[in-house]
Order: sequence, then structure tokens, then C-alpha cells
Amino acid sequence: MDRQKGIDVLFKPRSIAVIGASATMGKLGNDVLRNLIESGFEGRVYPVNPRGGEILGLKVHRSVSEIANNVDVAVIVIPAKYVLPAVEECGQKGVSALVIITAGFKEIGHEGQEAERKLVELAEKYEMVIQGPNCLGIINTSAPYNASFSAGTPGKGTIAFASQSGALMTGILDWSLMEKIGFSKFVSLGNKAHLNEADFVEAFGRDPDSTFILLYIESVVDGRKFMDACRKVVPTKPIFVVKSGVSVAGARAASSHTGSLAGSDTAYDVAFKQCGVQRANNMASLFDVAAVFDDMKLPSGNRVSIVTNAGGPGILTTDACDASGLEIAHLTSETIAYLKKNLPPAASVYNPIDALGTAQPEDYALCVEASLRDENVDSVIVLLTPQAMTKETETAQILVESHKKYPHKPLLAVFMGGNSMVYPRIVLTEGRIPIFDFPERAVHALAELYNYTVNRDSLKIESIPTFKVDKKKTTEIIERVRKDNRRVLLGSEAHAIAEAYGIPVARIRLATSSEEAKILADELGYPVVLKIASPDIIHKSDIGGIRIGLDTPQQVEEAFLQILDNAKTHMPNAMVYGVDVQEMAEKGKELIIGCSRDVQFGPLVMFGAGGIFVNYLKDISFRLAPMTRSDSGELIKETKMGSLLEGVRGEDPSDLVAIEDTILRISQLVTDFEEIVELDINPVFAYEKGKGVSAVDIKITIGG
Amino acid sequence: MDRQKGIDVLFKPRSIAVIGASATMGKLGNDVLRNLIESGFEGRVYPVNPRGGEILGLKVHRSVSEIANNVDVAVIVIPAKYVLPAVEECGQKGVSALVIITAGFKEIGHEGQEAERKLVELAEKYEMVIQGPNCLGIINTSAPYNASFSAGTPGKGTIAFASQSGALMTGILDWSLMEKIGFSKFVSLGNKAHLNEADFVEAFGRDPDSTFILLYIESVVDGRKFMDACRKVVPTKPIFVVKSGVSVAGARAASSHTGSLAGSDTAYDVAFKQCGVQRANNMASLFDVAAVFDDMKLPSGNRVSIVTNAGGPGILTTDACDASGLEIAHLTSETIAYLKKNLPPAASVYNPIDALGTAQPEDYALCVEASLRDENVDSVIVLLTPQAMTKETETAQILVESHKKYPHKPLLAVFMGGNSMVYPRIVLTEGRIPIFDFPERAVHALAELYNYTVNRDSLKIESIPTFKVDKKKTTEIIERVRKDNRRVLLGSEAHAIAEAYGIPVARIRLATSSEEAKILADELGYPVVLKIASPDIIHKSDIGGIRIGLDTPQQVEEAFLQILDNAKTHMPNAMVYGVDVQEMAEKGKELIIGCSRDVQFGPLVMFGAGGIFVNYLKDISFRLAPMTRSDSGELIKETKMGSLLEGVRGEDPSDLVAIEDTILRISQLVTDFEEIVELDINPVFAYEKGKGVSAVDIKITIGG
Repeated sequence: MDRQKGIDVLFKPRSIAVIGASATMGKLGNDVLRNLIESGFEGRVYPVNPRGGEILGLKVHRSVSEIANNVDVAVIVIPAKYVLPAVEECGQKGVSALVIITAGFKEIGHEGQEAERKLVELAEKYEMVIQGPNCLGIINTSAPYNASFSAGTPGKGTIAFASQSGALMTGILDWSLMEKIGFSKFVSLGNKAHLNEADFVEAFGRDPDSTFILLYIESVVDGRKFMDACRKVVPTKPIFVVKSGVSVAGARAASSHTGSLAGSDTAYDVAFKQCGVQRANNMASLFDVAAVFDDMKLPSGNRVSIVTNAGGPGILTTDACDASGLEIAHLTSETIAYLKKNLPPAASVYNPIDALGTAQPEDYALCVEASLRDENVDSVIVLLTPQAMTKETETAQILVESHKKYPHKPLLAVFMGGNSMVYPRIVLTEGRIPIFDFPERAVHALAELYNYTVNRDSLKIESIPTFKVDKKKTTEIIERVRKDNRRVLLGSEAHAIAEAYGIPVARIRLATSSEEAKILADELGYPVVLKIASPDIIHKSDIGGIRIGLDTPQQVEEAFLQILDNAKTHMPNAMVYGVDVQEMAEKGKELIIGCSRDVQFGPLVMFGAGGIFVNYLKDISFRLAPMTRSDSGELIKETKMGSLLEGVRGEDPSDLVAIEDTILRISQLVTDFEEIVELDINPVFAYEKGKGVSAVDIKITIGG
Repeated sequence: MDRQKGIDVLFKPRSIAVIGASATMGKLGNDVLRNLIESGFEGRVYPVNPRGGEILGLKVHRSVSEIANNVDVAVIVIPAKYVLPAVEECGQKGVSALVIITAGFKEIGHEGQEAERKLVELAEKYEMVIQGPNCLGIINTSAPYNASFSAGTPGKGTIAFASQSGALMTGILDWSLMEKIGFSKFVSLGNKAHLNEADFVEAFGRDPDSTFILLYIESVVDGRKFMDACRKVVPTKPIFVVKSGVSVAGARAASSHTGSLAGSDTAYDVAFKQCGVQRANNMASLFDVAAVFDDMKLPSGNRVSIVTNAGGPGILTTDACDASGLEIAHLTSETIAYLKKNLPPAASVYNPIDALGTAQPEDYALCVEASLRDENVDSVIVLLTPQAMTKETETAQILVESHKKYPHKPLLAVFMGGNSMVYPRIVLTEGRIPIFDFPERAVHALAELYNYTVNRDSLKIESIPTFKVDKKKTTEIIERVRKDNRRVLLGSEAHAIAEAYGIPVARIRLATSSEEAKILADELGYPVVLKIASPDIIHKSDIGGIRIGLDTPQQVEEAFLQILDNAKTHMPNAMVYGVDVQEMAEKGKELIIGCSRDVQFGPLVMFGAGGIFVNYLKDISFRLAPMTRSDSGELIKETKMGSLLEGVRGEDPSDLVAIEDTILRISQLVTDFEEIVELDINPVFAYEKGKGVSAVDIKITIGG
């Protein structure tokens, strides 16, 4: 069965069996059944236990096959060794979706992994979907039902939450009950043997009860599928992710610059960016954002009006806006005149609007409504400090009224205080105005609300450009290297591949004798460069393996011998194929364009400032291939080199189109050839507009 | 009187007069008197009001001079126009310290500013100290007394808090009552006419009741005095600052690279760094840190052990440690063996220690105490999620016991949840273990605890190096420029000053005719560089005002005429003094060393990657002058250029000592001559170790 159809049943089941239902308090099989009954599920519930009898007032079936009616969903909470036969039985019975809570699979090692493989086979054989194993279960407040062993059921809301950590989920659930945050779906992903984050993102996207998607993940199962699902959903619903495990992956073995500069988490960051997913760097901010999304319309821009009864908090808020990419709105002259007329003379009528410490509820209403009406304002943050004449609760009430009058613009409250803010907090929360205790959290949440509008709009459909290239020649070269039992291509081979993909290169030929070197130099034209040709020597200049600016046959001969001699001295065990003779490219701006390969997301293309100091400058940026032309343009713009290429200090701009083409051709190459695991072109010389680029030094490594 | 002696009286008064005490509820003069009486002040309280009578059971004096006994402190809450006479009367009476709550001074403009000036004159005449005006007052829980119009008195604690915003203070106070955070002193700085943040930092430093200092400031009155006070205090007490107003200062007019690259907030950042002050970027984190400092001993290193009952939160905590500069401790083999022996086989005995979802209180005790005993562990973070078998409150109790057994290592708790964590939270707070709801905040607070130990240790006494220089010549040159009514020095003048301060330069001479240019070129030796000499032409190369590599007298003549011609064409109104003839320096690594001047903190020295792209690369760092040799070394190390200078990819290291010397000599120059408001040396060529540096292009601007 189609996975999405399976999830549809999981989200709206008519009947649920609990395999492993138990009468013993404290057992998971008891918790699950009790939660299911208490959650108000209106369909049929079938406890299953070989002992039979009755639990919590329901007749117990000895097996699933004994149940007379159809079963849509089965929740499995029996010991691991009984799971496979139970799953088989569910398949035969025609169950659509399984929630396997039972642990003891992949996480215990090889044997468990094998069992998981069989689970997936059964799922496919019987066209079922499986959530888990090793999970907390699922809570669906819109069905409603709670098929988990959670302590409590979250309130009903519009947030769909999926988590790779069940324990984290229990913490969030407990916390949400106190903070009064509601959820539409609460899914524990477990080991993700069958259904994974991509499936649930897609399903949440289609779910009419969910408007906002939160994920906690430690990894994704299939990077491409995840990105596709997110791209489909983000235009209508925001997706927020906490991705942990940033520091865990540890060092990677990489021989290329690109490989060593791409951190273990880079591909995730880039993938999220390319599919419009917003990343939160901590759990608290995830839920600040959720509160704002739940309550508010989206702002149509980033211009904020700040209303306050004290200067200090106004400045803190201004700073925070500045740091988050929000602008302090320039109020219209009408608004300013209106405020001047109605506020005390000492008040500040410019943004932040300071209604002074004496501000009464009606003063707040006046300032807030003027802001909400102002065409230069996209959203409003209201600050309140508890001063001698402040009426906290009345002010909260009047804000709720203002929000009702102008519901189309986001309105956030920062009421700084503790005990005095207990009632105002209730009033604002019930009036669906998000409230915060300090300005920075409010600003951050509002900024993410705005960022979503930007992300959503940037996900326009744009095709991947395809250049005419010589794939056949590339295949031949790679075959030859393979046959040779090598992984690192010779310079001449790498250059030939680049040429086959239409990348302008400084031509290069392999010479195996000084005589041949001289002939090739004649052919290429003087001056030439000579480089040692050895897959074992990565940093050629460090061992005296490069000589540049050779003008005569005599210099070529001498350099040829000198380079071989240097290689012998410094790396006597290196396999040397000869010396590459290369035409000398005119010097341009030095760029690096490269590619490494991420396990989850595939080819990760890097662009940045090139030359020998690339590791020290670290002026680089990344995108996943295949790329659109906008992708390549943004990739360039994200680096400092990008602004240099546009031409500064009276310099002519560089040939940005040629640079983009080169990036896109490389994107095509590494997409066509999965065998290419690492690629570095460093430097690529970029010339003035219209004069193109020249790839000078190309390194390619293929996979084993 | 000495300001500190005045504050001593303010901190321990025997008698307090309230000038403007009122019987009318809701008036500030009533609030202040009531707070004073209710706060349990044991000294004498004198209400003062010309109407006389009795308020709140106390006899009212008609004026301060009417009071028979001594008055240590007077709190002034009368209308602004009566303040000066009242202050004069206090002076005559011999009052030591005034707290002026009354507003209507500097903040209302010129007239108020004038009144403040007079306040300060009176303070000095009568040897009093003044807090305010325009402030909330002072709360001193160790005296105890509350001489403010705050709504409530904070709990007793060891945090000393001074705030430039009174309103923010009311919010913090209200919040602290709910969060049960105690304070030793709560000082509203107001307009800081007399006493300012530097005075209170010093006083808090000496105050035995305060162990931790928090500041909210928007600016400092005297940067140097503030830094000196902090340097004195940080070795014994940590200072945390929220400095707002980052984005407010707006654009600065700056003609130098250094000036335009130093943001409005750079000097504050650098000043805090140089005096060991820790900067918080939001109010919430300020108090997270305060809670940890209040409860915990300092860690002796950055190695953290994490104990958890779930994997996900453990990973989140590991990520957060990694991002905050904390290390995940490598447990000793004894600890690992002990944990293996005592935990279930599925548990993870490596750090993070995962005691599994079934972990009972005694399992927690076992893991936590093993960590606290382990010599490789400096502090412990305990994570708990509310799972089916978790006993939250009992675990909290057992952690308090563990903490008592091993009080010398910091122990922080992250109990993720809401309603289930209400009791555990009380238990932990009473047991003086800081508790957080999400890992990131705990890690951040612990990291700041550790950073304090680093800061404290780095504030070693180190002298400012002094080079033998020619101050007289420098003075003469500056005088001459002044006489000439110029602010921008000619290249030859700037070079002469650099030479007077012993900075190696590429020599330069001003030629006013092509004949003179040829003579000077002969004198300096070929090849030479010619540059337009005009204080009005900042970017010389942009208008064709520079010609390099001139080898013959003929080339010099031709270039001289061409440069003048270019200047006339492109900037016909520029005042041109001639053409500078300069010896051609051998090219080295291009650096920029510069200085701009900050209003509060004085000369701000910049170091970084030089050349024409300095504004795009932005590989720069800053320090305030005068600087120690360590300062200059760190300044270099903070840039990417710093690592290039150490020699990478087989290159020889650059002459770091010569670079440091150049920085220190410039530091001395700008300290000696306050007239120098901007200075740029770009480029400075740095050569190999032992071969020095050469300052090629020097621009100096003097103040009006």
C-alpha cells in the first residue's frame, strides 16, 4: 500500500487493537490500553492477549485473527521475540498500520537489525505501514486517540510534532501541559524501520488539523526524500527542526579541501536551507516560535513597531530586532502627528513609541492601534514594565480588544515581571496574544515568523539546467582509473573530464620523459607549468613538485628532471606517472569550486576564495547538487569573494555568468557520476566580465 | 569626600531622611517612606515635609536642618525645582549620601543639564555623594533597607545589581520574587550625574555581602575608570553586563578603514574583554548565570560529565557543550568499570552516561557520585525526562544528598517537563542545585561559570611597554599641520611621525616639481613609487594618483606630470601639495594596523589583513590602547591572518615580534597624542622572521 494511504488510516482509524494489552498496572500494555480508552477514542478498541478474559471492561481476544471485525491499526507491546509472528498475523488479518512500541531491535545490534529487515519485508508483503519499533507510540488529538504509554495526553492544537527521541517527547508533553500548548499529532518515530520523518512530514502537510510542523531528529533516513517532502509542504505550512548530533559525528577522513571544510553538519544545514526548513538551535526557542505561529497571521514584511512604557526595554528590543534582521518601522507622518496630539509631551512618538511610565491601558490601546493601522508597520511588539501607575491586567485586556480589531497583523506582548504578570498572562493567552518575559525571545519568534514568509516565497519552481556534455568520455576515463586500481585521478585525467563537461581549463598533458615534455610544451605554447603526476602526492608545491613560468625547452627539460628528483627525495614511495605539462593560465581572481559527498544528502558543492590559503580564509559556502541557477547565484553571493567578484574599488566586475556555468556544470558532473566522491578545482581563475574562467588545478577522487 | 567612603555610608547608614515624605497614598514620597519602614531598617527614619505633622506614625520635620541628630543618607522625592536648595541644605547639615529620585534633569534638555551640573558642584562643595537623579532608589537587603518606590522588596541574596533603567529594574524585581532569586544590593543608577557604574562596581567589589555583580547599562560615563574598577574586582568577583544600545548609535562619519570597520559597539566589546567582564546578550541568560554562580563552587576546568535517562537529551547537551567550549569528560577506567559493574548491561557507561529510561533514584546517585569523584570531571549535568518508571522528586532528593557529599564540583540539573517537575524544582532549589527546563540554558550558564575562571586568571599584572620615541618631532609636525588649518596629514608628514615613533617605513619625500622628484628619487634609490600628495584625496589609486615601479628619472618625470594631470581631471577642487616620492618596499604579507578613537574608551587599535580589499575581507580585530605585549599578541592571534603569519603550508613564519612592536609603538603614539583621531597604515608589509616590517602607506587625521 502507498505509505501515505497507510498514514491516512493511522490518522483516522475506525478500530485499534492493542496486542499485548495487560491487566497489570505499571505494565506498558496496561498504560497503552488505558490511554486509548481515556483519550475518548470513538472507534472500536480490541485488547489482545493470549490469556483472554477482560481488561478495563473490554473483552480480550486471544489473537488478532480471533477478532471478528476489521482492524485498522494494531499497537504492538509484546516482547521482541513475539513481534514478527504478530506482525505476520496482522498482515493476514488485513491491518493497515502498525505502531510497534516494543524495543529490542536495531538498537541492540546485528540480530535486532535483521529482525527489523524482516519487519519491513512483512510490511511490504502485506501492504501495511509500520511506525517504530522502539517508540513511545502516537497521540492524535484530532481523531482523538492516544496510543502511547505517555503519562497524560497533550491539549488539542494545530502543531504536528514528530520526534526521534521518545524520552524527549515525554518531557515536552509534560511541559506543554503546564504551558498550555496544544498539538494535533504527537508521533514518536522510534527506529524508523519503515515510516520515517519524510513520510510524516508529507502526511502532516496534507493533514487539515495541522498548521505547523515541529521535528526533533538526530538523522534522516533518506535525505532526498526528506527534502522533496519538505519542499512540497513548506509553501503552505512552516517546518521547524531541532537537529541534534552536531558534534557527535567526529572527524571525517578527507583528502580534499572541500571534504575537510564541510563539517559533519554542513549538509543538514544546507539541505534545510534548500528546502525552506527552519532550524532552531534549542528546544525552548522551538516552542516560542510554535506559540507565535499558532496565534498569529503572517506579517507582510519585517517592519516592527515597538510600544513601551520605559526606555531600557525599548532599547533592548531594538537591539534584538537589529540582530534578527527585523527593521524598526518608520511610522507615517499621520501616525506621528496622531501620537503627538494624544500622548503627553515628554513621550517619544517615534519608534520605539515610549508612552512613559505613567502609561494607562487606554494610552497603550492608542499607541498599539495607531501602529496596527500604520501602513509602514508589519507587526507590533508591546513592552510593559510594572511601574507604580501601571495597570497590568487592564492593559492586557485592552490589548486583546485591539488585536481583535486588527487581527491581520502580528501582535506580541513582552510583560516583564513575575508575580504581577500571572493574571495578565492568562488574559493574553486566552486572547491569543503570545506573551514573553524578556524581549529577546519575542523578537526571535517574530523573526522566525517573518523568515517563514521569505522561505515560502523563495521556493519557486525552477528547473535544473542541463548542459550538453560528453558522458561517454568521462565514463571511459573513470573505467580506466578503476582498471588501474587507483582512486585518485591524474591531473591529465581530471582535466579531460572537466573538458568533457565543458569547463574551461588550462590544458594539461602527461609527459613521461623530458623529450616528451618539450614536445608537449611546444604544442601548448610557452610559457608552461610542470607538475608532478602522482596520485599519492596531494600537496605538490610542498615537496617542490611544481615549477611555473618555464619559457624555453631547456628550462622545461631541467624542471622535468628537478621535479622527479624532488619527488624521489621527499616521497620515495609515491607512485609517479610522470610530469604534467600545462599551459600557463593568465592570473585572475583565485576561486575554489569543489564537491564532497554526504552519506544522507549526496553531492555537496562548495564555492569560495581559492588559492593555497583556502583552509585559513574559510570564505566558503555550500549547496547540494543538482542545483538551479538561483542556487549557484546565491552560493556565490554568500561568500565575501562574491562581493569582490561584483567589482569593488573601481575594479571591473568578474565574469559571474562563466563562474555560475562552471558551478552548474560541476553540479551536473557529480550528479551524473556517483563514483566521484571528492572533487577540488583550486584555483579556478576568474577573469573580467566576458573573459570567462580557467580551471587550473583539478583533483578528482573516485569511490572504491 | 572620597566617593567610596560616601558609598560605604550609603550601604550602612544609621539614619535616613526622606525629603518629600507624603501622607498621600500613591505619591512616590509615600511609597518610599512606607518601603523604608516596612523593609525593617533598624536606624532612625526622618520624614521631611514643610507641612510637618505625622506620617505612618513618625514625626515629620519641616526641613532637614530641623532634625536634631545626624543624618547619614537623604532620599529626595520633591519636585525638581526644589531639589537644589534641598541639596544645599543637606550639605550644610552634613549628610553623606543623597539618593535623588526626582526626575526632570538631564533628560529634559539644556535646563536640566545645567541643574545637574549644579548638583555635582554642591556634592563636591559639601563632600557628599549623589545617586541619581531620575532613579528608582536603592534597595539594600543586607542593611536592610529599601529606599525606593519599588513595588516589593527582593529576597536577600548575594547578587549586587545596578541598572541604568529603573523600569527594567521593576520588571526584574517582580520576576525575582517569583523565581526566588535574592539580591544583596539593588541600585538604580538614574542619570548618573555624580555616582556612576564605575563607583558601584568598585563598592560592590568591596562589599562583603555581594559575591556576584550584574549590570544593565546603556553607556558608561568614563570608560577608563570603569575598566580600572572592573580589573580590580574581577579577580575576586565575576561581573556580568547586559549592554544595550548596540544598534542605536547609527552611522559614524569615518574616513579611515579603521574608523569605518569599528562598529558603534566594538569599543564596549573590547573593553569588557580587556577587563574580564562577561557580556550577556539577553536578560534571561544573565539570571541563569546568576543562579549558577549563587549556588555553586567554581569548576577547576571545562570537562563535563553528563548523566541521563534518555539518549536524545544527552545528544542535545553534548552539542550545546561543544558549541560553548565545554569538553565532554573522558571518564577514568575505574569510573567506567564501576559503572559497568553497577548499571544494566544496555546502559551506556561512557560519557554521556545513559542509565536508561528505567533509571531509579539510586541509579542516578551512583552515576552522579561516580562522576563527582572522577578526577577527569570538573562538573556534572544531570538530565531527567519523565518516563514511566521515573521518580522525579525522589531523584531530586538524592541529588541534593550527592551534592552535599561532593560540594566542591558544580552540579546542574535539567529536568525536562512541566507539571511533574514542580516538586522536584522546589527540592533542588532548596538544596541549592540550579535547575533548568532545557539543556542549552544549563550548559550556557555552566560555560560562563568556567569562562569566569579563565577571565580571572588572565587578568595578570603586566606592564605597558614604553619605547624610546621622538615626541618633540611629532609635536612639531602636528603643530605645523594645525597652523596650516588642515586635519589630514600629508603622506610625508605621517611617515615622519611613524619614523619618530620607530616604526620601519618605506621612506617618503614630498616633491613640488618634477625636477625635485627626480632628485628625491635619486636620493631614495630606484625603483620608486609616486603618489599624489593631497589631504583631500583619500583613495588615491581610484583616480590614477599612484604610479609604482618607476625605474628611471625619465619615468619619474613623466609619472609626476601624469599624476598631477589625473588629479586635476578627477578632483579639480582638491588642494594638491605636490607628489610624494617613496622608495619601493619589497612586497610582503599585507597587513593593516590602524586606530580610531572611541568617545568613552579612547584609542581603539585595529589589526588585520590589509590591502585594498580590507573592507570586504573584514579579517580584523581590536584592542584598546595602551596595550601590553600579551594584548598585541592576542590581537594578532584573533585574526585569520594571525595563523597565516605563523607560517602554514611550508612557508616560513613572518616576523611576529616586529609586527607586535609596530602595534605597540602605534599604541604608544595614539596614547601620547590625543589629537590623533584616526590612523591607518595600509599596507604594512610583513616579512620573514628576522626581516621586520615596512609601513608603506600611512594616513593620519588629527582632531579639530
